[in-house]
This record gives sequence, C-alpha cells and structure tokens, in this order.
Amino acid sequence: MSTASDLTLEEKASLTSGADFWTTKAVDRAGIPSIMMTDGPHGLRKQAGGTDHLGLASSVPATCFPPAVGIGSSWDPELIERVGAAIGVEAAIEDVAVVLGPGINIKRSPLCGRNFEYFSEDPIVSGVLGAASVRGVQSQGVGTSLKHFAANNQEFDRMRASSDVDPRPLREIYLRGFERVVKDAAPWTVMCSYNRLNGVWTSEDPWLLTSVLRDEWGFDGLVVSDWGAVNDRVAGVAAGLDLEMPATGGRTDAQLVAAVREGRLDESVLDTAASRVIDLVRKAGERPGVEGPLDVDAHHALAREAAGRSIVLLKNEGSILPLAPGQKIAVIGAFAAEPRFQGAGSSLINPTRVDTAVDALRAIAGDDISFAPGFGVEGGAVAASGRPADELRAEAVETAAAAEIAVVFLGLPAAEESEGFDRDHIDLPPVQLELLDAVIEANPRTVVVLSNGGVVALPFVDRVPAIIESWLLGQAGGSAVADVLYGAVNPSGKLTETVPARLEDNPSYGNFPGEFGHVRYGEGLLVGYRWYDAKGLEVTFPFGFGLSYTTFAYGPATASVTDDGDIAVSFDLSNTGDRDGREVVQVYASLAGSVVQRAPRELKAFASVALAAGETRAVELVIRREDLAYWDVRVDRYVVEGGEYTLDVAASSRDIRSAVTIAISGDEVHLPLDMNSSIGDVMANPVAGPVMQGALSGFMGDLDGVDAAAASMMPNDEAMQKMMASFPIGRLVGFPGVPVTHEQIEQLLAAANAGVSAPIPGR
Amino acid sequence: MSTASDLTLEEKASLTSGADFWTTKAVDRAGIPSIMMTDGPHGLRKQAGGTDHLGLASSVPATCFPPAVGIGSSWDPELIERVGAAIGVEAAIEDVAVVLGPGINIKRSPLCGRNFEYFSEDPIVSGVLGAASVRGVQSQGVGTSLKHFAANNQEFDRMRASSDVDPRPLREIYLRGFERVVKDAAPWTVMCSYNRLNGVWTSEDPWLLTSVLRDEWGFDGLVVSDWGAVNDRVAGVAAGLDLEMPATGGRTDAQLVAAVREGRLDESVLDTAASRVIDLVRKAGERPGVEGPLDVDAHHALAREAAGRSIVLLKNEGSILPLAPGQKIAVIGAFAAEPRFQGAGSSLINPTRVDTAVDALRAIAGDDISFAPGFGVEGGAVAASGRPADELRAEAVETAAAAEIAVVFLGLPAAEESEGFDRDHIDLPPVQLELLDAVIEANPRTVVVLSNGGVVALPFVDRVPAIIESWLLGQAGGSAVADVLYGAVNPSGKLTETVPARLEDNPSYGNFPGEFGHVRYGEGLLVGYRWYDAKGLEVTFPFGFGLSYTTFAYGPATASVTDDGDIAVSFDLSNTGDRDGREVVQVYASLAGSVVQRAPRELKAFASVALAAGETRAVELVIRREDLAYWDVRVDRYVVEGGEYTLDVAASSRDIRSAVTIAISGDEVHLPLDMNSSIGDVMANPVAGPVMQGALSGFMGDLDGVDAAAASMMPNDEAMQKMMASFPIGRLVGFPGVPVTHEQIEQLLAAANAGVSAPIPGR
Repeated sequence: MSTASDLTLEEKASLTSGADFWTTKAVDRAGIPSIMMTDGPHGLRKQAGGTDHLGLASSVPATCFPPAVGIGSSWDPELIERVGAAIGVEAAIEDVAVVLGPGINIKRSPLCGRNFEYFSEDPIVSGVLGAASVRGVQSQGVGTSLKHFAANNQEFDRMRASSDVDPRPLREIYLRGFERVVKDAAPWTVMCSYNRLNGVWTSEDPWLLTSVLRDEWGFDGLVVSDWGAVNDRVAGVAAGLDLEMPATGGRTDAQLVAAVREGRLDESVLDTAASRVIDLVRKAGERPGVEGPLDVDAHHALAREAAGRSIVLLKNEGSILPLAPGQKIAVIGAFAAEPRFQGAGSSLINPTRVDTAVDALRAIAGDDISFAPGFGVEGGAVAASGRPADELRAEAVETAAAAEIAVVFLGLPAAEESEGFDRDHIDLPPVQLELLDAVIEANPRTVVVLSNGGVVALPFVDRVPAIIESWLLGQAGGSAVADVLYGAVNPSGKLTETVPARLEDNPSYGNFPGEFGHVRYGEGLLVGYRWYDAKGLEVTFPFGFGLSYTTFAYGPATASVTDDGDIAVSFDLSNTGDRDGREVVQVYASLAGSVVQRAPRELKAFASVALAAGETRAVELVIRREDLAYWDVRVDRYVVEGGEYTLDVAASSRDIRSAVTIAISGDEVHLPLDMNSSIGDVMANPVAGPVMQGALSGFMGDLDGVDAAAASMMPNDEAMQKMMASFPIGRLVGFPGVPVTHEQIEQLLAAANAGVSAPIPGR
Repeated sequence: MSTASDLTLEEKASLTSGADFWTTKAVDRAGIPSIMMTDGPHGLRKQAGGTDHLGLASSVPATCFPPAVGIGSSWDPELIERVGAAIGVEAAIEDVAVVLGPGINIKRSPLCGRNFEYFSEDPIVSGVLGAASVRGVQSQGVGTSLKHFAANNQEFDRMRASSDVDPRPLREIYLRGFERVVKDAAPWTVMCSYNRLNGVWTSEDPWLLTSVLRDEWGFDGLVVSDWGAVNDRVAGVAAGLDLEMPATGGRTDAQLVAAVREGRLDESVLDTAASRVIDLVRKAGERPGVEGPLDVDAHHALAREAAGRSIVLLKNEGSILPLAPGQKIAVIGAFAAEPRFQGAGSSLINPTRVDTAVDALRAIAGDDISFAPGFGVEGGAVAASGRPADELRAEAVETAAAAEIAVVFLGLPAAEESEGFDRDHIDLPPVQLELLDAVIEANPRTVVVLSNGGVVALPFVDRVPAIIESWLLGQAGGSAVADVLYGAVNPSGKLTETVPARLEDNPSYGNFPGEFGHVRYGEGLLVGYRWYDAKGLEVTFPFGFGLSYTTFAYGPATASVTDDGDIAVSFDLSNTGDRDGREVVQVYASLAGSVVQRAPRELKAFASVALAAGETRAVELVIRREDLAYWDVRVDRYVVEGGEYTLDVAASSRDIRSAVTIAISGDEVHLPLDMNSSIGDVMANPVAGPVMQGALSGFMGDLDGVDAAAASMMPNDEAMQKMMASFPIGRLVGFPGVPVTHEQIEQLLAAANAGVSAPIPGR
C-alpha cells in the first residue's frame, strides 16, 4: 500500500471523505482499498444491499446484544469484553472494518433520547465499561469508534447546540471517560459529535481533537466525523478531523484542494489526515479471515447471559421472587409478548431472533402461566391494540385475580425514546399506570417488570412488593427475564444512574435542553448522584443500587498506596445466603475540607464479584491515583490534592458498608504571586509569606493600627482580617497612608517568586 | 469653572482620581473645587476628622434609617423616596456631594454577607425601590452612586472572582434593576464593582461601562470605581471609568499621562472622563445651602415610621398579636436590650440615638413587661454575656413561665454577617434555638422576633404561634417593633426574598461562592422564587409573603393595553377587617408555550396600598411592556414575545387571588436563514417555508421516500420527522442520493432571505 507522499493532492483530499454512506474511497492506482464502517454499538447494523444511499434502510440480520443501558448495569468489564468480541466476530464475517461504537456519553438528564446507548451518569463507570467494549471488538481485528466526542448529552438541536461546560465538569465528568478509554484501550477511531462545545463545533475544534485527544491523551488513531457533523471541512482537517462521513459528492474534497492551493491549509496537515486513513485501511487489512456463517445459537446464548446480567432487581419484599414452580402466574402487559428490547435510530439491529417473556415463561412453567396484554403498546404495530382499552384492562384484571402472583410488564413505547429527539417527561403512559392500579387492586402480590431505555418515575414503588428493572435487553431479553423471575439467574445488576423521585429534582432541570443554540451545564460537577447527595435529596433508588436473591456481608476495609502510587482497597466479601450470586462492590472517595468543590462522594473503583453460597473471598479494588485528581483551572491540568481521603466501600452510593481513611501526598502546584494576589494568599504562601512578613513589618504594623481603628465599622478583629485577607496586595499598597510603595512590593513579590515551590495545602 | 479643554494633560489625569480617601482633587488654577463623597446608603457615614487616611475610623453622628433589607420589605417607593430625601438633607448639612448608594445587587444566595444592603432577589423590586432611593437623595441636590455595577452577589473573593453569567440571566436578572434605575432616576454616578464579570474586571469593561450603560441605557453621569477596584487605570479610563477612588498617590495618574503621550490612550477619552468629573463638581456646586443643625427628632421619627413599615409578620396563629394592654409579657433575648439594627462594613452608621425594644415596650406597657436576656449576643460587647448560659436560660424560662405571653428576640450575631465575607450557613446560633425550645416548653404562647440581615432557617416555625421578621431596622427599630407588637402600627411588610426550607434548596447551592477566581451562575434565570416555583419546592415562606392584623379581599382583575403599549391591570381591593392597614399587591406574568425558558411566574408590578378598615378601592398597576421582554441571544436585544399572557394578581408569589389573560403583540425579529438553519427552521419560516417547499418539491419528495425506507430504524414517521427537522439544511443536501445541490440551496436561501420579515411566533 502506498503512503500519503505517493498521492496527488486530489487523491489525498479524496481519501479523507467517504465514497458513499458506509465506505471509504479506494485509490486503486496506489493500491489503497476501500473499507466499510457500520453502526453499532450493541450489534452490527450493516446496511442490506448497496452502500450508496441514505443509509436508513433495513440491515442484515445480526445478534442484538443488550444496549449499553442494559449491559452497563452488569458493571462487569469482563462480560462486556466478551460481548464486544462476539460483535467483532460478526463484523469480521460481514467484512466490516469498523463498528461505530461504543457510545460513552454521560447521562446528564434522564430525558436524553439516546440514553439507552450510553452507560452511566458516572465517568468511571462509562470509561471502564467503554474500554472493555473497545478491547472486545478490537480483539477480533475489527476497529471501534469511540463516540460521541464530546459533551453530546441530548438529542434536542443536537447538530447545532453548543454544550456550554466549565473546565472542571468538562474534564472531570464529560471527558474523563473518553480519556480512560483512549488510554486503556486505544480505539482505532474516535467519532466527533454533532454538537458544538463551548461555542466551537467539535468537528473543527483543534483544542478537543488535537490538544486534548492527541497531545494530552496520546491518541494515535483516526478521528471520523459523525455522519453529517462537518460544518467547515477545511477548518475540520486543520483541527484534527481525519475523515468526513458520509460522502459529499466531492464538494468538500474540492474545498480542501483549494485551501491547500491558496495557502490557507498546510499540505502537511492534509498529509497527516490521509496517512491516518491509510493506517486505518492497513489495520483493517490485517484482520484474520473469519469463516461464516455466524453461529447464531451461540451468540444468542451469549446475548441471553448478558441480558440476565443486565437486570436490576429493585425491590423484593417478602422474597416474593423468585417465583416457585407450581405457582399460578398471571403475565400481564403487551411487552411480555411484544418486547421492547432495543432503542430506535442508528443503533437499531435487525435481530437474528427475538425471545418473548411469555414464551420463555411458558417454557418453564407451562400452564401455570396465563397471559393478558392489558394495554396496547403505543406507536408500534401491536396485535392487541385493536381492542378497546377497557376490554383489555378487564381481561387483565380477571387474569390477575385468578392467579397467585401477577407479573406486569410495563414500559416506554418505542416512539417515546429514540435517537433524534428527547423525552419531555419520565412518566410511563397513563394507560399502563391505570392498568397497574387495577391489577394491584385485584391482586396485591404484583411484580412489575420494566422495559425502558431511560429511567422512569415509579409512583407505584410503595404499592407493589417487587420491581424488576429490565431496561432494554436485546433479542434474548424475554428469556433472561424468565431466568430471573424463576431464579435460574440470580439478579446481580445495579443502577448506573439514579432513579429520581421527580424529574424536577434532576440536576439539569431548568438547564435542559437549552434554547437558541446553547445549553448551559449549570449544575457543573454535580451530575447524577453527586447532585442528589450534595443537595440531600431523597431518590426513589440511588446510583449503584440493586438487590440479589442472596445476601452479602462486607468485612472491614483496609487501604494502602501501591508502588505505582495507586490505592489498593481490600476487604472480605461474603455471600451469606444459600444461593450463588454476584455482588457489584463499589468504592467512593471523599476529602473533607478540600480546597475545591467536591461531591459528598465520588465513585472511584468497582467490581462484580461472583460468590458461591456461603463463600467468603478477599476482594481488592485499585483506585488509580489519577482518578483522585481534580482539574485545577489555575494551572490547567489535573492535580491530586494531598490530604486524608475517606474511602467508602459500598453496596450502593447510599449504602456504605465499610470506610477507611488514607493519607495521600499531593501534587506540586506552582502559583507565582502577583499584584492581584490577595493579602491572604501572600501571607499564606509558605515561601513568600515569611519573606513578605519580614519585608513588610512596618506595613503590617500599620495594618494592626487599621484593625484597631476599624473597630467601629467591623464587628471584630477576625471579621476585619477576613475582609482584608481578600484584598489584592497591589490595590492596597497605593492607598493613602500605607507606607510601602507599589514598586517595593513588586520587587518583593519577584524575589519571593524566585523561590516559590510548595505542595498545595491539604486543607 | 473651566472645562477640560482648559486643563493640561496632567491636570486632566489628576482630576480623574481622588485627592485622598473621600474627596476629589481640586484644580485651583482652573476654579475647580474638590467635592466629598461618603458611604451610604441608609444614612451618612462621613468620616470624622480628616479625609486623608484609610477611612475606616468612626464617623459623625447621622440618622440610621433601616438598611435595604428592612425598608425594601415595605415595597413602597414613596416611603423610600422620603427616606432618601432625609438622607439628602443630612448630606447637604454635612456638605457631602455624593452619598454612595443605593446598592441594588440581587440576593442570589442567602449567604452573601452584604445582603442586608440589597433590596431583593427580584430585579423589578430592586429597580423600582433603587430608583426611589436615588430620586429621594437627589431631590436635595445631593448625588447618589448606584452600586455595585454589576453582578457582585457575594463577598467571597469579591475583588477577584469572575461572576460567570450567561446573557439572559445577566440581562434579565442582574442588569435589569440597574437599567431601571438609570433610566428612571438618572443617578449622578454609578459605582463599578470589585469583581470581574465573565472574566473582565468591571472597572475596565468597555461593554459594561460604555456599550450597555451609556450607549444602550443613555447614562450621562460619572462612573466611579469602588474603593480599590481599579486593576489597570488606563484600561479603565479607556473602558469608561471616569474617577478612580481613593487616591493612589499620583501613581496611576502618571500612567494615564504616559499612555496618552505614548499614543496608547486617545487624549479625547481622558478629556471625556475629566469633563464628567467637572460636570459632577458643577452639579454639586448647584446644591442649595441647607442650614444645620440636623433635626434629630424629626429624622428619628421618620426612621421609626420606616422601621415599622419594614417589619414582616410571618405568622400570627389565633391572632395572638397584637398584644393586648394588661397582658403580662415576658421579653426574652439580648437583642431586645442590645439591638442589631444595621450591618457591618462601609455602610455602618454612627447613629444619633438607638431605641431598644425593651425600653419601648416598657414605655407602652410599664410593669406588664418583664425582661431576661436569655443568652449573650456573641461577637459583641454584651453586658449579660459574662453570665453562664445555663443561668441566663433558667432565668429566661422562669420569666416566660410567669407571663401570659413570651416575646423572644432572636437574631444573628453581628460577627456573622458583614461586608467582606459571606456566611457559610443560615442557622441561628444553637444557644438561641435551645433557649427558644426551653421557653416554648415553659410557655407555648411564644412570639419570636427576628433580627437578621440575611434570611435564616426557621426550624421552629410550626412550634410557635407568631413570628415577626424585623430584619435590621435602623436606630428606631426597637420602638417600631413595640409599635407592631402592640398594634400601634399594623404590619404591612412582605418578603422580598424567599425563606427557604433548607440552604441546600437554594438555587446557587453548589455554585456558590465558586473557587479559584470563578463563580458560575449555573442556575441561570432561576433565581429566588423563580427556582423554587420551577422546581416545585416547598419553602418556609414564599417571596412576596406577609401578614397583617387585618384582612384583604381581591376582586376580579381586568387588563388592557395602554396607549403607550404598557399593560394596565385593574382590580378592586378591600380591607375586610376592622383595622386600617396596607396591602402589598403584586402582579406576576407568565406565558404558556413560550419559545424561551421562563420561570412559572415573574413579578412585573407591585404597590403598597393603604386602606382604612372596611374600605374598598380600585387599584391599577401598570406593567411596562419592556418588562415583559426576554433577552434574545440570537439578535442580542430585548424582545417581547407575542402571545396570550397570564397575569396573576397576588398577595404573594404563592397566593394568587385573581388571574387575567391578555394578548400581547410580539416584536419583530429578523433571522436570516443560512446553511446551518435546520430543515425545521426553513420549513417553519413563514416566508421562506413556502418558497423552499416549492423549490424543493423533488427534494422533499425524496425525503418522503426516506421516511418510508426508514421505517425499520425509527419507531414511526413522526419520530423520523422530529429527527430530520433538526438536521441543518446544508449538511443534508450534499449527501449521496439527495437530488438538490448545495449551490442550489444557497441560492434559494438567499432569495428567501431577501423577503424575510415576520414576527416571531407566539408559541
């Protein structure tokens, strides 16, 4: 294969945009073939037929694994890596070079229409699980595209709105997961998002695509545009965008050629972009051949395992679950027969098969299962929907009343959540809630099973003994739900996002989705549980929460700093029940008296631990030192603050089982003093303070005099000192009566700065 | 007096900074005298002795009127204007040219240490009352200084922190009050604040000091720096800062001279600043002479009247108030004898006298009054504080038990609220709350009287029958409280700020006070009641709330558009009780389905209406059309959105008595279409839409085809349309298969734009 230097200007330009909707351009003369990309991320959406049309037509059958909202609830990178590898195999069989995923954007608002494609409201969860997904796919010689880079947290006006985010939340919440995936798993490509970030299109942001992604994080892959995300092709390439997708009929290639010819774009920049395309094509060419056809059964079985691990048991009063053989069970709700198992939009898979819960339950319990749809699924083709609502409801109530236990499948209609638009509420449809009320009245032993891509309000939470959050589970979800209902699978999923009591409690409420091209991320760092904890708000179910059919006990935790400077947290975990199970253990960090704002606790490490009934195992989780860092806007980099950190070992963000403290040494921060340094800063500086104090003894003596004189206007000396401490030194020294000149202070500060070098204080 | 053109460069430069702490420089050669400024705003703080020192020493006696937190609760511009006039008289007697006030910054957080100097969390209240204060002072030929301009809403790091505020909240919340005062009352001077605004020092912000203040609002007075607020003198003068205070020993004057000589500053800019100083000196010289001495008694009487109008009756269960003659009353709490009547810092007055509540109550009820301090006022010199807390408490409990009613005076210690630093909680001291608990147990007929500059949490709200919020009331506050307690004054104050249930509920919580030089106003428009209403949060007492000893009934409201385009709202108001009284009536506006984010309701007009017992009066309030406008970031100006507005006539923000709707015509907004206009925008445009639709019939036909083909990825056609509507037209037309070229669309948009002119839609 040729290199970029062998190509003409026109050939280089042409290489950096698509040939059609899904493939890159070949340069036959130079031996550069075309490669194909397809949508992901939880399966392959390879367009059936040609690749030269708008790309919205149906696709070849592929295994539909649980979308990120589901599989993320496993908190298990090993599982996600296996699923990624399976997707890689399917891609290889179909000769797909790059699967467009994973999506790891933060769930800022439950309203975001695309939340089902994302993992969590927390960046560590998103980053760890996203990296696992990339590792899995790429283990098969198939590339990934980490998306949507960055701060694309809503669908409303997604192609124009600027996400206006301050430096700390941008770094610590919205970029941290991307950084993790890039550094840990080296995705072949990163996909820039549609939106603007702080006013700049991400497709043409040199800070984002080059300074941060490449220079800081060391990314050496290719940056591809989201489909249609390019605003100004020349600006994009200059910023670090390597490949525009889809094709533009040569129009924007010609802009690049003209820009180089007219000296507006350095040709070497285009060379770099073209080289990255060639590199990607070369990597794709190195993929070992994979023999088809797809082992549909094996992949379906993996989809079923993953779906079982995705389910979160939210409530199980009186151990009504698992269901016992022989119990008469009323299965209510259209979703049991016509499952919602994935979200709409570019990630929509044409599944190889689809399990329904009612079939799977009948396979287990036969005639003990009765079924009534109860309502029509709105917005889709549903057989039952032709019947009037009251007839459906009456039938369902009768069915429930005749059974020992009612299992009611509720969920969001497909039309309410999709790529391309957001929800405007988090409620289940009234027809479903009314049905549930009627069923509960007929049979209080009612289990609710939810199908939804984004969280929903649970107004019935106190009125049913059990709730299963089964999200969107992929094509084997129906079987997986039956597995959990009857205990073949012991549920082990936990929430990667908070279930709020009210939409109004959400941190983005009032700032979502913005207007007129801007959305202010006004809640700053306080996203998800960080907000609910900081505000002391009650939630319906907290971040990290999930039940099991067994119970777990946590031993006391210890913590130590490893040779690498990371923090190892160890404790014994016991399965204290009589069933095998898995527990998702979590470690949260906090630092009392921090110099910066922090959430009450922040997740830093987690693991899904399998334990046989009665087993006890020593668990060790490692917190990376860099994950303790905050973004320091004074020096524009991450800084670990020194101090005594508290590490909470927890079963959820609000269920702390053991706490340990550990002293962490801080990073050094150099902050030169200047005339706008406050008197407090100057006096507190460990090097400059004493120097200044000595040099300014006469001046400070005079300030003491001021304190005394000021007794009439300030309540006491401490108040006076608080007020004066914030006064910039340069403003005060020029005042009448202050016996030190501006020039003298300048000289003293310069002298002091020459020796300034000190860790920032721990508190 | 000479003009600037008669002066040398050095003389002009020298004129634009102070001679010392409180006076401008004279230029004797040119006949330009020096004038004096003193702190305000609720009385004169004229430094005793010379003006050439640091300015923190004690001041000459003056009448201490209620600070803004108090008098603002009257919601009565007429009263505030009379008080302003009295302050003007005192200034004239002391030959003071400019009183530094009023302060009208928005109470963004209850923690701001200087909230007692500000009027409200609402910009209309702040603006209307601030204008009244300016009119009053300036009616005596004495100037004012409207401060602190702008977005100075905290004391923490106040001299460096940047208030980072988005355009709409900046305009609609933080600048709207300033605009009102400038336009309505023409203050002689405006004082720039210490802080930075969106990264720029307000003392050197040409946008703020010139574009907004002068070019948009028409201000023609002088801009003076807050004392020590100048960061870069040359940049300041260039931006529109006319006068630096205090003196800098000539250092910064020399910088100006050098800048002009070196061509870095146009001399005409300095001429303008010097001319404004000369204008101010000339205006000051025109003040009619006022004969001293001050009529201390008359001004004290006015201070008492104002204090009585400042009191807010928050609760009065079973009409326990007013107290009846002959009842045995236990007066508890050190504040009854040692009142907190003003805040600390630059506004601190040396009062001509101070009334105490216990003296005033004894003057009314003699031996029916018993007194026990109960606790020592912390942080001040208190006679009782030498006694142990348990002894003080036991005495108080005994006193309360022996009386029919206990009146407990609680409040914030002076050391907890002051200029120069913020509070970090909103709680009353534990010693006071514990005392109250003990008193309630001894005598449940307990009335609480509060003295505080910022709101406090009221954990006892459900356990006492009556609460009087008496804020900081100035020197006659003790008498005023007695007037209200015994009914000589019927309370009529209402809250200009919400009393939240918890500090954590406050909109700025989590974004206050910022760190490392930045504070993000992340709550945006939702300041104060706007937030509590939008979030549906319970509050302890809502904005606009206050009780009376009588009752008021509101008749049905009508609304009409006046010849000026303003909106007149009329209704009958009746005093339905048997006491004369005053009711603060409020009108809030809302617009359902607005194109922009709006709070559920926004205050637009108010009045304090006096009604004799049994009287009914027709009330008319006028909403200015411009106060209905939102700041439109697309066109960078205020826009009135057309539509059907709901106007709520209310006794508080949560006590709507009558609602009326009125259709308002919208302002025209011209928004040219471009390639980043969405398909939805293009199709919705009343002129361009049909043009485009015709021109693009083939294209749209193809899109219809796309819709059908996309049935497999989108849940339905409506969802598909929602997704496509947000697609920028320019991104789509280049796609493969789309049969219209980029160039054709460009031509069509240009043609369409030539005819675009339409009001923005009402919804």
